Amino acid sequence: MPFTEIDYIVDDGVATITLDRPDRLNAFTATMARELIEAFDTSDADDAVRAVIVTGRGRGFCAGADLGRGGSTFDATDETRVAEREWVGEIGGVKRDGGGTVSLRIAASRKPVIAAINGPAVGVGATMTLPMDVRLAASSARFGFVFARRGLVPEAASSWFLPRAVGISQAMEWAMTGRVFDAQEALAGRLVSRVVPDDELYPAAVALAREIADTTSAVSVAVSRQLLWSMLGASSPWEAHKLDSQAITHLGQGRDVAEGVTAFLEKRPPSFPDTVSADYPDIVPPWPSRPDGMD
Amino acid sequence: MPFTEIDYIVDDGVATITLDRPDRLNAFTATMARELIEAFDTSDADDAVRAVIVTGRGRGFCAGADLGRGGSTFDATDETRVAEREWVGEIGGVKRDGGGTVSLRIAASRKPVIAAINGPAVGVGATMTLPMDVRLAASSARFGFVFARRGLVPEAASSWFLPRAVGISQAMEWAMTGRVFDAQEALAGRLVSRVVPDDELYPAAVALAREIADTTSAVSVAVSRQLLWSMLGASSPWEAHKLDSQAITHLGQGRDVAEGVTAFLEKRPPSFPDTVSADYPDIVPPWPSRPDGMD
Amino acid sequence: MPFTEIDYIVDDGVATITLDRPDRLNAFTATMARELIEAFDTSDADDAVRAVIVTGRGRGFCAGADLGRGGSTFDATDETRVAEREWVGEIGGVKRDGGGTVSLRIAASRKPVIAAINGPAVGVGATMTLPMDVRLAASSARFGFVFARRGLVPEAASSWFLPRAVGISQAMEWAMTGRVFDAQEALAGRLVSRVVPDDELYPAAVALAREIADTTSAVSVAVSRQLLWSMLGASSPWEAHKLDSQAITHLGQGRDVAEGVTAFLEKRPPSFPDTVSADYPDIVPPWPSRPDGMD
Repeated sequence: MPFTEIDYIVDDGVATITLDRPDRLNAFTATMARELIEAFDTSDADDAVRAVIVTGRGRGFCAGADLGRGGSTFDATDETRVAEREWVGEIGGVKRDGGGTVSLRIAASRKPVIAAINGPAVGVGATMTLPMDVRLAASSARFGFVFARRGLVPEAASSWFLPRAVGISQAMEWAMTGRVFDAQEALAGRLVSRVVPDDELYPAAVALAREIADTTSAVSVAVSRQLLWSMLGASSPWEAHKLDSQAITHLGQGRDVAEGVTAFLEKRPPSFPDTVSADYPDIVPPWPSRPDGMD
Repeated sequence: MPFTEIDYIVDDGVATITLDRPDRLNAFTATMARELIEAFDTSDADDAVRAVIVTGRGRGFCAGADLGRGGSTFDATDETRVAEREWVGEIGGVKRDGGGTVSLRIAASRKPVIAAINGPAVGVGATMTLPMDVRLAASSARFGFVFARRGLVPEAASSWFLPRAVGISQAMEWAMTGRVFDAQEALAGRLVSRVVPDDELYPAAVALAREIADTTSAVSVAVSRQLLWSMLGASSPWEAHKLDSQAITHLGQGRDVAEGVTAFLEKRPPSFPDTVSADYPDIVPPWPSRPDGMD
Repeated sequence: MPFTEIDYIVDDGVATITLDRPDRLNAFTATMARELIEAFDTSDADDAVRAVIVTGRGRGFCAGADLGRGGSTFDATDETRVAEREWVGEIGGVKRDGGGTVSLRIAASRKPVIAAINGPAVGVGATMTLPMDVRLAASSARFGFVFARRGLVPEAASSWFLPRAVGISQAMEWAMTGRVFDAQEALAGRLVSRVVPDDELYPAAVALAREIADTTSAVSVAVSRQLLWSMLGASSPWEAHKLDSQAITHLGQGRDVAEGVTAFLEKRPPSFPDTVSADYPDIVPPWPSRPDGMD
């Protein structure tokens, strides 16, 4: 994989994706977007990967869209952006937002995704973390949903993800002021689950990834992740009851549950035989689902 | 009621359901599930019950599914489980999860339900508390959504309830690590509303139940409970406006509101005449509603 | 505008609506409801208004419905209330709740709305703040969703708004006890984002309004507000992706984004040329949307 704007390594069950344009505070580009999507395709297909960490090289996480084109940065009619427009496709004749294409791909991951936010995470650098499962912040991290200060609106499907992560009131305050805020405000507002000293950030992310890799069934985690995200859009718990009944019945006859229960009763670490590539069951519909009739 | 695995008593307006297999840390069985459903049928039908407390006998709340059958505990094809399978019914030819059947029954309660979590609440012992309204924890309580560590997925419709109780990020972290955590982590993550010393837990639950019983209209509480749960699944506040307008118009002509307002103006405790059995209005559709067309 | 029960002033980009019946702790009436709706129509139409503050005159914010008619206050069949009934209209032959009519209007505001809760906010005085974007409380503020104590149910579409603001468990505890609670409980339960000394409340609200007015695009804020509220009712982030892609494409070619990006790169305050009255794009459907087929 000849990645040029990210780095992707796998070590002992954990994939680390590093945004890798440190001279630009890892500002987001169409190339970075394509590479992120390819990286998540890779981690999903590789049974050796049990969890994914996303972090940034250098002192930034991701400073947002690269503003190298100045005031015309977001002008999709700019002819020099034809290749980018073709890549991201269109919805109803309108260019699809590249940040959203990345967010929807991250949301669909079959592996848990941990954001290790090591510095400024602004604009798409903040919104791309919302479909990740756990956000950890370094003390020096900063955040900003700055779109209203640039003349834009929250993108990358963050109008859907942000209120579900932090509640509508906190989401509104951040979206409507466009304020840049520090890690403590992020913690108080429940955008991140923990703030740690800068040099403890990556080890903390690895420890969490290891907790998952060492103790859980890969298939269970993959199905659970789809199930929880899916049910955010379900109007009734009956929908969860239907799906989880089918999943429990299917998995209840399997090899992983036999190992999981036996290991627990024997007070030893489990060694689960099943893999996502071979054993992922066709029970929970792929998420995020595209609503019927959406053009 | 010859309950064998729970205890059910009513005292001064408050029903207490005690999970009662202390030698097994009150592990969950098909019998316990049936008895819980019957207990909630009883509390709903009894106008003398204004609130329900659920707690556990001994040092546990509920340790989860009884793992007495070891690695085949969750195998629904086991012939010895035919009676259980017949009881819980099927969805699309698949055995329905018994924990979910209990959760949906608790969700439909017309009386407020308070969990007094006195010790380990693990697996279905944790998920059964999610459709309850308030969760109080003793200092020594512990929690675990341990399904991924056993080779299963979150059941009892908890994929629907848990993110709505604690937010999607916290729900994901607990579901994907399967970690067992203490009462302070539960409080920080908003799974419980309060942590109290062990010997103050049941009194705190009773005090909350009494606050409801002594100051509120039973009909108001029953309708409010259905209305709030229902509206979690509504896409627009117009749906709430339609239902609450009808409820306010109906109740606004009633005896309870005359007493409630008059008592308030006279600065005396109210004495509401209406009862759930006689006066519950047919305004808010029964919840949780089963979506149209669900087999 | 001959307002009689509210005061409406605009100063340097910020509209302040003051509930103005201080001898009745600003208790809510049909007149106040009509005037609130007219005030929000006015602020939406006035490009000089960038944010709206709602507060109360004297020592109260809003004590709830005026109970001057005692036990028959909420009886819609009372002939003396014909004019009020005609005003608020009907749904399916049932009088529409006036508090909800106000709440739905506030929700539809194109300007951000900040509640500066200076004293008791009880009943509709509490629920009317839920469709506002940020709630700030004075130390002496108190809150109560007291409906169950009066023989009613939560109105003003609060069964939809409250669980989305504070989570279902906290919403249930407040709705089912009907308890009156202080500013610290409101903060702990995330009903308000900040508690400040009484004499710092209005300045804090103005500072927040100024932060928005001085740094953001009016059109961006208006579209963002609609987008975030709308997406609370969307089942899939694909719906957000579709709308935000269209918004980013449209706004990305505009004058505000050129100014916003250029000002940022030049490290100077922006001066956005676009206005809501002239430039609000027809992208995000008006919210709150009334579901198809609702009578």
